[in-house]
Amino acid sequence: MKEIEEITAKLIAFRDERDWSQFHNPKDLAVALNIEAGELLEAYLWKTSEEAKPEKVKEELADVFAYAFLLAEKYGFDVKQIVLDKIQKNATKYPVDKAKGTATKYNEL
Amino acid sequence: MKEIEEITAKLIAFRDERDWSQFHNPKDLAVALNIEAGELLEAYLWKTSEEAKPEKVKEELADVFAYAFLLAEKYGFDVKQIVLDKIQKNATKYPVDKAKGTATKYNEL
Amino acid sequence: MKEIEEITAKLIAFRDERDWSQFHNPKDLAVALNIEAGELLEAYLWKTSEEAKPEKVKEELADVFAYAFLLAEKYGFDVKQIVLDKIQKNATKYPVDKAKGTATKYNEL
Amino acid sequence: MKEIEEITAKLIAFRDERDWSQFHNPKDLAVALNIEAGELLEAYLWKTSEEAKPEKVKEELADVFAYAFLLAEKYGFDVKQIVLDKIQKNATKYPVDKAKGTATKYNEL
Repeated sequence: MKEIEEITAKLIAFRDERDWSQFHNPKDLAVALNIEAGELLEAYLWKTSEEAKPEKVKEELADVFAYAFLLAEKYGFDVKQIVLDKIQKNATKYPVDKAKGTATKYNEL
Repeated sequence: MKEIEEITAKLIAFRDERDWSQFHNPKDLAVALNIEAGELLEAYLWKTSEEAKPEKVKEELADVFAYAFLLAEKYGFDVKQIVLDKIQKNATKYPVDKAKGTATKYNEL
Repeated sequence: MKEIEEITAKLIAFRDERDWSQFHNPKDLAVALNIEAGELLEAYLWKTSEEAKPEKVKEELADVFAYAFLLAEKYGFDVKQIVLDKIQKNATKYPVDKAKGTATKYNEL
Repeated sequence: MKEIEEITAKLIAFRDERDWSQFHNPKDLAVALNIEAGELLEAYLWKTSEEAKPEKVKEELADVFAYAFLLAEKYGFDVKQIVLDKIQKNATKYPVDKAKGTATKYNEL
């Protein structure tokens, strides 16, 4: 079994043991992901990157991944494929010769 | 090479071709992840889950994953491990006999 | 008419001319507020505070306020009162002698 | 003193008593606002609008407002003015005859 399939299977087993599938509609999963992204961000509040505690980052990032994998599963997305497709797409939006060394957004390049 | 390692390697190659490593400190990666989580949420705004366009969800979820993988890489986290550890931890916070069929938060169970 | 009442009345007139009340349930207003908060954050992505463009901040902050006022109105909250109440509450969580000059969260003080 | 000026003055007094001005740069205020927006959203997670607890909404919305007012103050924005300006701008993006009764985003109208 592939890595992401395996993680997702574990997340689903956890969910189903608790009969939580009824709550996990895509909209609420996206809401949950946003809440966890906010908690991740809290690790950095009033701080530099270096001052953030890795243990807190780890915990919150794990939650972000959990909801992201569950949402991907709802739609039957292959995570590897959608990320590689997006990289491809971004390569067009951010051609190396224009984007190199600048953080400017594509619509202002 | 494992799946997540492979995705991460592709993301880093994309980043390094553009010399973007200088911008990608952990705090800004967490900020970027939040922005993308917000764009993902926009797929569901004023809509039911069913009305959201899967194509939009796919695009934005891919961006969320991209920044989540890049952030994990910054800390040397093994994504599979941190998610499985969190499942373990949540199993204690949400024991099946108490949590089954209810969406109540652990501190109110 | 008080200032916030006046702003809120204008927001509601704008909404009602477009017959958007049907979409503006509290949950979706909170979702909209999060999306706008993300767009506000984008003004600072890969940047220092000084590098962010005030014009972009202004636009996005206005959107955050718009949804915040609309949500407050849904519940009949008096914005001034709820903020002053929260300041009062935070004064207890963050007593001056403990909190002075430190960004530590109240539960770690 | 106008209402918003008064709220802002109270927030600044609270901040200055604790010597927190040093942490309150615009970027971190925008980060804080996002975290609070996420906590507000949590009031609605796995729930309908009706199931959300107004008391939780009130608390979190107050925090959103607090950071929004503090950020506006940093830039010297007149909150009433920027919201009214945005309404004006949105009136052009969403003309009544096109936008009435539809939640479609302006770029798809």
